[in-house]
Amino acid sequence: MDRFEYRNNELFCEDVSVSEIIRQLGTPCYIYSANTLIDHYRKLASAFSEVDSLICYSVKSNSNSHILRLLAAEGSGFDVVSGGELFRAVQSGGDPSKMVYAGVGKTDAEINQALDLGLGWFNVESVPELENLRKITSERKISANGALRINPDIDPKTHKKTATGKKHSKFGVDIEQAANIFKKYARHDYFHLTGMHLHIGSPIPDAKPYVEAITKVMTLIDSLRFDGYTIDTLDIGGGFAADYTTGQAPLLAEYAREIVPLVKDAGLKIILEPGRTISGNAGILITKVLYIKKSPVKTFAIVDAGMNDLIRPAMYDAFHFIWPVEVSENYVPLRREEKPDMTGLKKFDVVGPICESGDCFASERWLPPVKRGDLLAIYTAGAYGFTMSSQYNSHPRPPEVMVQDKLTKLLRKRETYQDLIEPEIFD
Amino acid sequence: MDRFEYRNNELFCEDVSVSEIIRQLGTPCYIYSANTLIDHYRKLASAFSEVDSLICYSVKSNSNSHILRLLAAEGSGFDVVSGGELFRAVQSGGDPSKMVYAGVGKTDAEINQALDLGLGWFNVESVPELENLRKITSERKISANGALRINPDIDPKTHKKTATGKKHSKFGVDIEQAANIFKKYARHDYFHLTGMHLHIGSPIPDAKPYVEAITKVMTLIDSLRFDGYTIDTLDIGGGFAADYTTGQAPLLAEYAREIVPLVKDAGLKIILEPGRTISGNAGILITKVLYIKKSPVKTFAIVDAGMNDLIRPAMYDAFHFIWPVEVSENYVPLRREEKPDMTGLKKFDVVGPICESGDCFASERWLPPVKRGDLLAIYTAGAYGFTMSSQYNSHPRPPEVMVQDKLTKLLRKRETYQDLIEPEIFD
Repeated sequence: MDRFEYRNNELFCEDVSVSEIIRQLGTPCYIYSANTLIDHYRKLASAFSEVDSLICYSVKSNSNSHILRLLAAEGSGFDVVSGGELFRAVQSGGDPSKMVYAGVGKTDAEINQALDLGLGWFNVESVPELENLRKITSERKISANGALRINPDIDPKTHKKTATGKKHSKFGVDIEQAANIFKKYARHDYFHLTGMHLHIGSPIPDAKPYVEAITKVMTLIDSLRFDGYTIDTLDIGGGFAADYTTGQAPLLAEYAREIVPLVKDAGLKIILEPGRTISGNAGILITKVLYIKKSPVKTFAIVDAGMNDLIRPAMYDAFHFIWPVEVSENYVPLRREEKPDMTGLKKFDVVGPICESGDCFASERWLPPVKRGDLLAIYTAGAYGFTMSSQYNSHPRPPEVMVQDKLTKLLRKRETYQDLIEPEIFD
Repeated sequence: MDRFEYRNNELFCEDVSVSEIIRQLGTPCYIYSANTLIDHYRKLASAFSEVDSLICYSVKSNSNSHILRLLAAEGSGFDVVSGGELFRAVQSGGDPSKMVYAGVGKTDAEINQALDLGLGWFNVESVPELENLRKITSERKISANGALRINPDIDPKTHKKTATGKKHSKFGVDIEQAANIFKKYARHDYFHLTGMHLHIGSPIPDAKPYVEAITKVMTLIDSLRFDGYTIDTLDIGGGFAADYTTGQAPLLAEYAREIVPLVKDAGLKIILEPGRTISGNAGILITKVLYIKKSPVKTFAIVDAGMNDLIRPAMYDAFHFIWPVEVSENYVPLRREEKPDMTGLKKFDVVGPICESGDCFASERWLPPVKRGDLLAIYTAGAYGFTMSSQYNSHPRPPEVMVQDKLTKLLRKRETYQDLIEPEIFD
């Protein structure tokens, strides 16, 4: 799962004490485990090694340049969704020919940026975008490859804000229209539409929706090939789950066991776009308890991290396991779950300092006794943590740190009050 | 309401054409009207002029230093909720003795920062915080004033994420406990608890919840005074509404008409903490249509602003009026509402470029015909717009501009790709 574990009743990231990092950097602070990232990447690559696969790590899940560098060194491609992510990926040593660019709102400037760099594939989200790509590549006489994003109308049974493959979605084209779009647009002097792209949402802790979607799209591919069209690439997207609780996510090999047989002999390059399954469990957010506040009906642990640092609980009602960094022997957690089987736990609402009721990391959560000054770890915060962070309530954003074995490296410095106003213009 | 109006079928901010600003600065872009801010401030000050009132503008609604400067020059105090906001307010010329500091998670560093500056009032959210304030002021031998935040258990009938005065809230202390807390903690050599603070949530388009809460707290004040305690300040909080649709918010004079009689002869300084009622209608977000995408069931106007720029629709299902910046004669909107009474309107989903289904500004919204390249104004974006913005999907944050009469001033420059990675540390 990951390399965050208790040693002598104290949380370690790989071989480094979390408390020790915090003594130097303060709270709140994001801590990432390099070997967890590498391990997740390699497990996924190995699980899909039977097919001609390319892993394109989803930059939006965690876009810190150092994390991208680490994955680029492993051979990873990148899934980018903006010019900014493309910039980051290239700046971190990523190979543009191993990148896919998705997103419904590609601007002309972003398309030109991608063409200049020699992007691998545009994941095309609509007919107007397709027409725009044909226009720009023709005008510039630059060739490019595209994969049409197919909306398979599968319900991935995830949060409505992150389900993306259903019929009323802004993403992709409905599968019924796909054949006609291919017939009209596949052949072009510059923009070669030779791929299909699927992305059904996230997180999806089950291979079934993938099987359903891939089966649908394979039928379409067979039929288009029968009509003489070249389809050489199938991007099955991302959305694989992470272990927000222990054992919640299937092993990557289990997804592969269901998916590989469907595509193994199809003569297709298979692209995967994993995000949180690589980065989610590779990061934690450490926060300090500022006050324990008791009301007649609740006990609040008020902490110094807020929804500005990690918005998933406020935005998606997402569950994150939370546990003290230092505990007594009998409170070392064996599993991460909503209510560990221990005696003496108490119910807390773990809330941040932001002036919104939604700024709550966990409601009625069972925790060991905690007091002012204690450090809490918010787990599985490596994905959609820092990338969604803001300076709301004028909170400077926290630092990001990466541990590899015994080494700790500061990846991004803590923002200061001065940084908040720096871009404001004064005469 | 505000100074955004159509002249010759084209949207103006005060005396400046919005299209002209965008030709220079591009999209997305926040545009503020200085005279709207001033007008709202003065109307509120005038509405409460019968009482000894102090308006403390809520910095979290829009914290740009230039906006704080403008309001400081009008005589406004400030409601801050963090050390960062306190820094901004002081840096903008605000008088610390006219500031209130609320928030459940004040750190010792923030408390010391406020004490060093001579803050007006700490709005105290809990007993442990109160004990901490007594401890720090005693140790430092510095006097400070406090107002106890009372949780009146009123349902303001607003979004659950922004209702703050109910019983299970993390904010304040329950009204039943307040008298005992006063009796135990009111008298102290350094920390003088002589005020009461209320904040019941936002936005509340009705004076009734205020009347109910103030009535409850006045009874408490009378009873404490009878017992010999000094209560000289009542902070009635903020949460006054803004005109997301035309006429939705009561006039500030209407709130005052209900509230003033309750407190007029009470010998209290009355503090108000207006945020969106001052800044909400003073700002718009301008975005460009990138693609018009038709599916069998929907028409999407895909725009270049996203939930990273303005998160309220994704976060709170908030309604923002959206209309093209340039229209034909028959589409000049007379009122801002969900479905203006015009012929020829069509239904659009106005969605951003972010790779989440939640990145949708309006679903099934009636708009005049719009096409690629058109500019759309998203109204009432001056509050909780830029302050909640992020760089999610590696989108640089947009610029902020302020217009006053014929003058346009850039308040904050557009971020660049380089800015995204600048704080990341490279050897």
